[in-house]
Amino acid sequence: MEIDISKPILDRNERLASENRALFDANDVFVLDLMASPGAGKTSTILATIAALRDRYNIAVIEGDIASRVDAEKISAHGIPAVQINTGGACHLESDMIKRAIDALDLASLDIIIIENVGNLVCPTDFYLGEDAKVMILSIPEGHDKPYKYPNIFGVAEAVILNKYDTLSVFDFDESEFRQVVHSLNPSAPVFPVSATKGDGIDAWAEWLIARIESARAARAQS
Amino acid sequence: MEIDISKPILDRNERLASENRALFDANDVFVLDLMASPGAGKTSTILATIAALRDRYNIAVIEGDIASRVDAEKISAHGIPAVQINTGGACHLESDMIKRAIDALDLASLDIIIIENVGNLVCPTDFYLGEDAKVMILSIPEGHDKPYKYPNIFGVAEAVILNKYDTLSVFDFDESEFRQVVHSLNPSAPVFPVSATKGDGIDAWAEWLIARIESARAARAQS
Repeated sequence: MEIDISKPILDRNERLASENRALFDANDVFVLDLMASPGAGKTSTILATIAALRDRYNIAVIEGDIASRVDAEKISAHGIPAVQINTGGACHLESDMIKRAIDALDLASLDIIIIENVGNLVCPTDFYLGEDAKVMILSIPEGHDKPYKYPNIFGVAEAVILNKYDTLSVFDFDESEFRQVVHSLNPSAPVFPVSATKGDGIDAWAEWLIARIESARAARAQS
Repeated sequence: MEIDISKPILDRNERLASENRALFDANDVFVLDLMASPGAGKTSTILATIAALRDRYNIAVIEGDIASRVDAEKISAHGIPAVQINTGGACHLESDMIKRAIDALDLASLDIIIIENVGNLVCPTDFYLGEDAKVMILSIPEGHDKPYKYPNIFGVAEAVILNKYDTLSVFDFDESEFRQVVHSLNPSAPVFPVSATKGDGIDAWAEWLIARIESARAARAQS
């Protein structure tokens, strides 16, 4: 006999994600799930996004990693509340981990939570955490062929941030082919070339995110 | 009631891995499981390794990806037998997939099989495939803090290839801190700085690998 264990695990995850969602709705908090490979620049992109948005919104960050507090410490150093989740061995965040993390945050005082998922292009795509939107980062050094190999994540992301764009000349990255394949997998997802550590390109990404946040809030206000 | 499903899955994987191992032993084939993030340069490193070893050994490659035949085609273009495994959604290779892949190879004619695992620093570490050694690649753009965040993979790798070393000046990568943390997690693992696409540093890595292959073969000959 074989037992399909993926379904009950995903069902339980969905149920707890809905509970998270209800809490976010009650407090009018917009939640972004940011996914990428290890070292694509998730934390740097979050820091650049915080710099662009902090005058307008109250922001907190939930950091997911197998081990260490490296990223939460980087965020906290900028005066932003940060909760570190250590998954032990798990390759992605699940909604019960987010549930525990938000217990440590003052939701009523927040406008946005950015969740930095574990560095992985595969597993995080299957798990709804209660977020408003999933967005992914690909970095130039990873290569333009990644959408062929990891199509799911490019399919579920509402936007694709193309980070380390300042190193385009150093690597053999065909941006036109990349955009073409991303578009075929996900026609509505915009691609934002940025250099998170230098701040280049962050304006266009922040403008998109603000519009996305405001439309989610407007929809909530009507419902 | 909660059921721990990880144990039976791992048990089954171990059993099939032992069957793979028996086949490799019977044919005196050395098997390397190569693990890394997406875009760290696994395929380029395999091509550089093939160039260094092909006069001495008959080599085949098993390529693991969620989707696409991009990598197997790159390897085949160099006249090396390559089998592509598409895992569908799975984030790592398991021993039953390897079992099917080796059915497509002429083991008796081979000295080495290089397995390129799915791009992922987490999940592949838990699954024994029947290989002689696991080796990992980290690329400079990923950053020197990765051993803090993904300690398991640095613990199980017998050697660490530090790829895209030619871009060291472009990124904020502290090599001394990196080596220190890798050493604390895994005192016996050598670190090989290479630029796989340029061939720099491949000699030292290939020398280590040849010694590793020959010691495995000598041990097999005695048993």
